[in-house]
Amino acid sequence: MADQRRNLPVLDCATEPLVRDPLTAEQAVSIAAVFKALSDPVRLRLLSLIASHAGGEACVCDLTPSFEVSEPTISHHLKVLREAGLVTSERRASWVYYRLVPGALAGLAHLLDTTEHAAAGR
Amino acid sequence: MADQRRNLPVLDCATEPLVRDPLTAEQAVSIAAVFKALSDPVRLRLLSLIASHAGGEACVCDLTPSFEVSEPTISHHLKVLREAGLVTSERRASWVYYRLVPGALAGLAHLLDTTEHAAAGR
Repeated sequence: MADQRRNLPVLDCATEPLVRDPLTAEQAVSIAAVFKALSDPVRLRLLSLIASHAGGEACVCDLTPSFEVSEPTISHHLKVLREAGLVTSERRASWVYYRLVPGALAGLAHLLDTTEHAAAGR
Repeated sequence: MADQRRNLPVLDCATEPLVRDPLTAEQAVSIAAVFKALSDPVRLRLLSLIASHAGGEACVCDLTPSFEVSEPTISHHLKVLREAGLVTSERRASWVYYRLVPGALAGLAHLLDTTEHAAAGR
């Protein structure tokens, strides 16, 4: 099983809700890079397929049948998700298995949280 | 005061966490467009400045001093955020005021929620 801590979430250092304080330029650059990884429909579907797959992991062989794009294209998109700290990968026998990094999505969700904002009556 | 309901959040129809079920191709296209709006550092900082500004709204005159880019560039980025359903705008006298659409960020945060996923031991 892949070690989910292998790729540390990019947002560890910047998870305060963006409604609380203005982001610094550095924080914005890091966070924008993660949102850029999520800004492609194929990558979003891949992330969702991996996360909702039985056991919380999926190999490329589970993923490619859902798409009308080539396996190298799928592999490229998976690499982008991995480099953004959103998924981890592990090779087992002849296949690479992908698994969500839960902390990364939770960090993004916290960043977008508006609970405090709403409570302040804004 | 701007009517926050003027721009309906883009994600009203697709707010189930993406860890629960695979996104459809149509959902992925809509959601990717919102993440694309968030994938630029200047736009992220603008969104954060608007959301954290006193009273929850900011005019262009409050925003431009924080950036080393021109006012037309700022206006372009604000237009992208507005078209993605993330902010609303209202002209008052000679300035346009921007305000967060709370439902949009909450919808994205819910989409990225992994609570159920973690509870399932994935």
